[in-house]
Amino acid sequence: MDARDALRISREAAKRVQKAILPLPLKKRAEIYGFGKSGITKFVDKVAEDAALEVLLKEKLRVLSEECGYVGEGDVFVALDPLDGTFNAVKGIPFFSVSLCFSNSEKFRDTFFAYVYNLATNEEFFADEEAFKNGEKIKVGEKEDLSEMDAIYYYPKKEMPFKRIRIFGSAALETCLVAEGAFDCFIDVRGMLRIFDVSAGIYIAEKAGAIAVDEKGNPLGEKKFEISERLNVVLSNKLAIKKLLEMVL
Amino acid sequence: MDARDALRISREAAKRVQKAILPLPLKKRAEIYGFGKSGITKFVDKVAEDAALEVLLKEKLRVLSEECGYVGEGDVFVALDPLDGTFNAVKGIPFFSVSLCFSNSEKFRDTFFAYVYNLATNEEFFADEEAFKNGEKIKVGEKEDLSEMDAIYYYPKKEMPFKRIRIFGSAALETCLVAEGAFDCFIDVRGMLRIFDVSAGIYIAEKAGAIAVDEKGNPLGEKKFEISERLNVVLSNKLAIKKLLEMVL
Repeated sequence: MDARDALRISREAAKRVQKAILPLPLKKRAEIYGFGKSGITKFVDKVAEDAALEVLLKEKLRVLSEECGYVGEGDVFVALDPLDGTFNAVKGIPFFSVSLCFSNSEKFRDTFFAYVYNLATNEEFFADEEAFKNGEKIKVGEKEDLSEMDAIYYYPKKEMPFKRIRIFGSAALETCLVAEGAFDCFIDVRGMLRIFDVSAGIYIAEKAGAIAVDEKGNPLGEKKFEISERLNVVLSNKLAIKKLLEMVL
Repeated sequence: MDARDALRISREAAKRVQKAILPLPLKKRAEIYGFGKSGITKFVDKVAEDAALEVLLKEKLRVLSEECGYVGEGDVFVALDPLDGTFNAVKGIPFFSVSLCFSNSEKFRDTFFAYVYNLATNEEFFADEEAFKNGEKIKVGEKEDLSEMDAIYYYPKKEMPFKRIRIFGSAALETCLVAEGAFDCFIDVRGMLRIFDVSAGIYIAEKAGAIAVDEKGNPLGEKKFEISERLNVVLSNKLAIKKLLEMVL
């Protein structure tokens, strides 16, 4: 399987998820379906996962998904978030996505393709060796001065030096906003991010020129596609990353 | 002029603004047009204002607009934000709106109609004596416990007790999210909000059952439709407002 296959599969999965969830009324989306591997599963999560797996399990893939853990068999590992931004999807806020990260091993560092799709707006981000939004190459911003930066930060514990802070509630899309240079950094050091929340967006941002490290400045390549894996992420351009790490401490 | 006239005028203005700005490429939207009454005017701000005024100045209205100050003559005052969430509009993030607040005097307390329209998603909020979203009556949430609350907060200066914090970058729409109960509170105590940013959303939220006060707990009715007027806003349901004020201090 190569990046071209992964793109085809990702697109098919995204369209399938979109078709399944958009017609659902908000109240129906919000119903509690049960308890998945990583917490409460809302009805919309379940529908999204079923739709994505319907596509993915026809392929030779070992899929780690938010709600059900590992399913399928194959040499290629996929970290799937069938619906990132469930809260937004339930509230009708147009900021929720499908996210897929394809790796040749169970480690993030062997990723060769990543895909994020905004289900409400049809914006498509992906990366193989380069990063794209709606088919056009993207790259990260170049700001070095924190006071000029537009930041996404979960959650500031003290006053922060940025020009703007935004928190949209979908890490997959927010990391892509950094990839395309719309925002200058993404910071989440709560120890709560999961591998399927952010691996695709981080890979896309890296291929767009960003640096992604944990709160201590360590690279994230050794992170595994596992339900229990937790990530802290500081994501920005090369120039700003050191200042951000000093600030986060 | 009554609320029915105000609704008709608002809808016409919103459609006119939408038609003018949505076709603009993001790069064109972002160009700096000049310096308006309240800071830098981007091209998209100018286009939005021209489009709104084209509609509003055919009516007997005294319009206070973000970019140009007071224009027009009439007994009814309108606080107009032709484009709230300019940053989002420029970045392609689907969270930006037109906002209009109609008052029988130059004070907020004589407001009789308010209108907020998400230009990217076509969601329509308005209030006369009651508050509506897309034609259906809305009301604020009923949560009292801060740790259960979904909050919009510009910007936390210390760790906060909420379940979620979000910052979307359009006060007009965010106050409407509180009005419809999607979020539990909106807090901005930076001393930076302007009357045209939030008066419409606050009126809609109040008519949906919310309480809006400044950071000291004072009501906002005496606020004037003036470019120089600045607001601090703590907006939530009746049960939570006192706890929020204690927290903000």
